[in-house]
Amino acid sequence: MKVTVAITRRPEIADPQGTTVRRALHDLGFAEVDTVRFDRLLTLEVDGSDSETIRQRVEEMCERLLANPVLEDFVVEVDR
Amino acid sequence: MKVTVAITRRPEIADPQGTTVRRALHDLGFAEVDTVRFDRLLTLEVDGSDSETIRQRVEEMCERLLANPVLEDFVVEVDR
Repeated sequence: MKVTVAITRRPEIADPQGTTVRRALHDLGFAEVDTVRFDRLLTLEVDGSDSETIRQRVEEMCERLLANPVLEDFVVEVDR
Repeated sequence: MKVTVAITRRPEIADPQGTTVRRALHDLGFAEVDTVRFDRLLTLEVDGSDSETIRQRVEEMCERLLANPVLEDFVVEVDR
């Protein structure tokens, strides 16, 4: 089953990459850009048929390896 | 207006980070994981009221700065 995980920096955590890209976009003439945030998007193919079990396992993967729980939040979506 | 941009590596392009994370997940006992792909997720706040104009401008930003058109595809979504 296909699972997507969006791992986003918590709002209070600085995003230097986003700040740099925002400046570069302004330099290119895209002055309408207020903010840019850079996050990670993971796509997993996972064996199994029960989407609730898969969701719980992938959330465990996020907590143990994929995300940094101090700095990041994550949202898991299992394709049905 | 809030705009999300998913920038994904083209399928034929190798993803060493995904391969490494897949191996680490297997080492942790998550043997059900077949593949892992790492991509980028951007969230922009853009001034403007016409969502079609905003979409075109953000697609231009992707082509000129945000994505590498040789290696990557992108999908722009404007929140309505």
